[in-house]
Amino acid sequence: MSTEPVLIAGAWRPSEQTGTFQAANPATGEPLPAVYPVSSWADCEAALDSAAAAFVAMRAMPGERIAAFLEAFAAKIEEHAEALVEIAHLETALPKSPRLADAELPRTTGQLRQAAAAARSGGWCQPVIDTANGIRACYGAIGPVCVFGPNNFPFAFGSASGGDFAAAVAAGNPVIAKANSSHPGTTKLFAELAHEAAVATGMPAGAVQLLYRTSHAIGEQLVTDDRVGATGYTGSRSAGLALKRAADGAGKPIYLELSSVNPVVFLPGAVAEKATDLAAEFTGSCLMGTGQFCTNPGMVVMIAGETTEAFVADLAKRFAEAPVGTLLSESVRKSLHESHRILTNAGAEVLCGTGPGSGAGCCVANTLLRVSGAAFLRDPETMQTEAFGNSSLIVVAASLDEAAAVLGRLEGNLTGSIYSAADGSDDDAHDRLEPILRQKVGRLLNDKMPTGVAVSPAMNHGGPYPATGHPGFTAVGIPASILRFAMLQSYDNVRSHRLPEILRDDYTGPAQRFVDGKWT
Amino acid sequence: MSTEPVLIAGAWRPSEQTGTFQAANPATGEPLPAVYPVSSWADCEAALDSAAAAFVAMRAMPGERIAAFLEAFAAKIEEHAEALVEIAHLETALPKSPRLADAELPRTTGQLRQAAAAARSGGWCQPVIDTANGIRACYGAIGPVCVFGPNNFPFAFGSASGGDFAAAVAAGNPVIAKANSSHPGTTKLFAELAHEAAVATGMPAGAVQLLYRTSHAIGEQLVTDDRVGATGYTGSRSAGLALKRAADGAGKPIYLELSSVNPVVFLPGAVAEKATDLAAEFTGSCLMGTGQFCTNPGMVVMIAGETTEAFVADLAKRFAEAPVGTLLSESVRKSLHESHRILTNAGAEVLCGTGPGSGAGCCVANTLLRVSGAAFLRDPETMQTEAFGNSSLIVVAASLDEAAAVLGRLEGNLTGSIYSAADGSDDDAHDRLEPILRQKVGRLLNDKMPTGVAVSPAMNHGGPYPATGHPGFTAVGIPASILRFAMLQSYDNVRSHRLPEILRDDYTGPAQRFVDGKWT
Repeated sequence: MSTEPVLIAGAWRPSEQTGTFQAANPATGEPLPAVYPVSSWADCEAALDSAAAAFVAMRAMPGERIAAFLEAFAAKIEEHAEALVEIAHLETALPKSPRLADAELPRTTGQLRQAAAAARSGGWCQPVIDTANGIRACYGAIGPVCVFGPNNFPFAFGSASGGDFAAAVAAGNPVIAKANSSHPGTTKLFAELAHEAAVATGMPAGAVQLLYRTSHAIGEQLVTDDRVGATGYTGSRSAGLALKRAADGAGKPIYLELSSVNPVVFLPGAVAEKATDLAAEFTGSCLMGTGQFCTNPGMVVMIAGETTEAFVADLAKRFAEAPVGTLLSESVRKSLHESHRILTNAGAEVLCGTGPGSGAGCCVANTLLRVSGAAFLRDPETMQTEAFGNSSLIVVAASLDEAAAVLGRLEGNLTGSIYSAADGSDDDAHDRLEPILRQKVGRLLNDKMPTGVAVSPAMNHGGPYPATGHPGFTAVGIPASILRFAMLQSYDNVRSHRLPEILRDDYTGPAQRFVDGKWT
Repeated sequence: MSTEPVLIAGAWRPSEQTGTFQAANPATGEPLPAVYPVSSWADCEAALDSAAAAFVAMRAMPGERIAAFLEAFAAKIEEHAEALVEIAHLETALPKSPRLADAELPRTTGQLRQAAAAARSGGWCQPVIDTANGIRACYGAIGPVCVFGPNNFPFAFGSASGGDFAAAVAAGNPVIAKANSSHPGTTKLFAELAHEAAVATGMPAGAVQLLYRTSHAIGEQLVTDDRVGATGYTGSRSAGLALKRAADGAGKPIYLELSSVNPVVFLPGAVAEKATDLAAEFTGSCLMGTGQFCTNPGMVVMIAGETTEAFVADLAKRFAEAPVGTLLSESVRKSLHESHRILTNAGAEVLCGTGPGSGAGCCVANTLLRVSGAAFLRDPETMQTEAFGNSSLIVVAASLDEAAAVLGRLEGNLTGSIYSAADGSDDDAHDRLEPILRQKVGRLLNDKMPTGVAVSPAMNHGGPYPATGHPGFTAVGIPASILRFAMLQSYDNVRSHRLPEILRDDYTGPAQRFVDGKWT
């Protein structure tokens, strides 16, 4: 079988490859037939040149043109929904329905259309005008964006279809997509549809390009290249940190989503009020999608006591009895076992699981681990090892003070949840813990599981390091997510006809502008 | 003479020092009498603990409290204006009037009051509410901020008084100020006034703290500490890059202003129209304050021709004849000579200057260097060596194409200016160069010199690396500058009484909010 082509400079062409790879079907363990190239620097070089040229063309385009492209792409995705669901299911074992067809696909087209609306209105760029000083400013496109997509959301976070792609394009940037190696066929189909939409709407040749894989060294060279504006990365912490080091060293913005254990605090009063509901809710959230969500509740904090013991026992029973899902790949399975090994070596007790799972293909038994607050505090770094998948670690603190100490040692997370009693009996405990947790997480929840990340302007899918690389940005939620791929641009005494339309005196569009200290 | 105390945990106390240093009067070269400590890690540790405690207290304060502190501080600065001007003049040789007393001091109090207004209104935190999804978000304080101030603005960018200080506090963060070693006495006086204002307005003990100096290693340890939220740094590129490497490695946001040559393009038609005016304007901008502004025009780009030759000759004559100012310190003088050595070794021709200056104390002759576009392009990195001071490099390109190539090789800068003819004869050339320059600079100017950075909401005192560490942020201009010291915080299903006031349904304050897709 011949090697699949890459998409560079508006054409599908043979890669100047240094090797090849195949994806596997995680439900069977069998390799899938298509063969994909590992790109050399020559492919990157060609893609960067084309992206740089495309950027010049896109900078001169009104937002309406960008919007038309994003909407045409969304329509094409819907036309080819069946094929997308089919190949993504083969490559990831994620259920076709409701997950891929009814949840992730509409989320993806919805994001693209929200991004289109933002590009059309222009409001995301926050125009500010100071007529007395003759200075005007707004955010503008940053330059070609490299997008590295994760394994767990082949559509909604896909490198040629997902949130980073939509945000980067909405700001006016070309995208060089790097497929996730676990679902190259899905990414290829998205890139084909995006390319067709780009041609149909008159976008420049390098607006959307696709590479499947590179060596780590070439990936690092790519994100530091002078022609690149910024990079979006969602994936493993180790690969992400290597890219971060490279990009940081070159002063290139890189937005990363790396890892998160998403602590959930169950306060005693809440457990006393509705233990069964909470246990069902937690089990559902933690095992849904075989636990492979960025916001999976991978750590629980409770305070020791009888209700806690009963609750933990119930959770363990539920985990042991629940069906075991298939993991996204053999490497996810290996990595989950390795995390369990690290956690148990550090002293975590196995309440259930860690062994082989009873599901189809790649799987690990639903796992609950337990550790005391004191043991957690002896080695908090190791105890926060992310166990990506159907697994969680319960930390039972001896007291509220110890629970506060545990939260105080948390690394940055995407989310943190506090469940407290409706009758107010947990309020003092809540007020003690909330200020600590608030600063450690991007999204704070009350009485709610962290899974389920609404595409809302009020969403923050971000958080302090190492959840992400910078706590000021979100990967989900338009318009805020667009700002990651923008730079602040001030115009001082610039002649009025040379200003971006949104900064001109005769602007009549829909964007809110901050003019001489007032919103208009 | 005894060593000056540091300000830690609300008290002036002896430093646990590892050494001492003195500042010098650059106008005489004589050391000034006061002796300042070099702090050990013990001082940092104590300051971090106090800052962490102060942060908890400040997070619970309404913006009104923060505003009251900033305004009380501004009033105290005005009360002690004479003493501040006196010591800053001694330590920096900057003229008392108009520079220190009439320009920089009012700028400083103005910034503090603008920051107070932003803290009071809360609008800087960009509240977003999505009632359908039950999610709300705004920016919130990031945690204790370390501020490293530069040598060239002892008031307006001072670590205990300037823009970073004002922005960090407005967001609700305590500040650990690290004085610039060239003006420790000025910084100490500001810290005394800030501390008095903090006491008078009921701020917590660790809200404002002052260290004078640390070793590089301890500085790096400081910015990576878990208790630190972020760092603001303005200063030399080498020291800044060392801090950046450390902070990046720990995932701690650091905002740096490092170096910038601020290219000015004089297009031929503009020169033909008003050569004398432009020469006077450029000379004034480049030599003002002995050229020691972040936005000093350190590089000129022109296209070869007779008018260019005449213009360059006129500039050289003006530079040679202009009075020579005093530099901020002996180290600035040495560094300027070293930059001239690097540039001339790389092939730059000396039109005037590079030798000893005829001014008082530390000085270097007003310097103009010249290089061809071709020579620039042979080694663009070396040719962009910043010569901080009364110096500029004129790049004479053989053609518009070569000028475009020169701009294409520019590193990131704070500013870039294009002068073009009023009669439209330069418009094609402008349109060719503008898209290249726009992406390289934070602030683009037309027909105007880059010096003079208005404190305006539309200002961008920022730009791509290495001008700063991230092109999405500005160090000047409220409210945008405040966002550097904030994190995005989303509240999902959080009980309404637990929300920040600005996110509640019953909020009646002045801030604009984005509620269910509409600004209200």
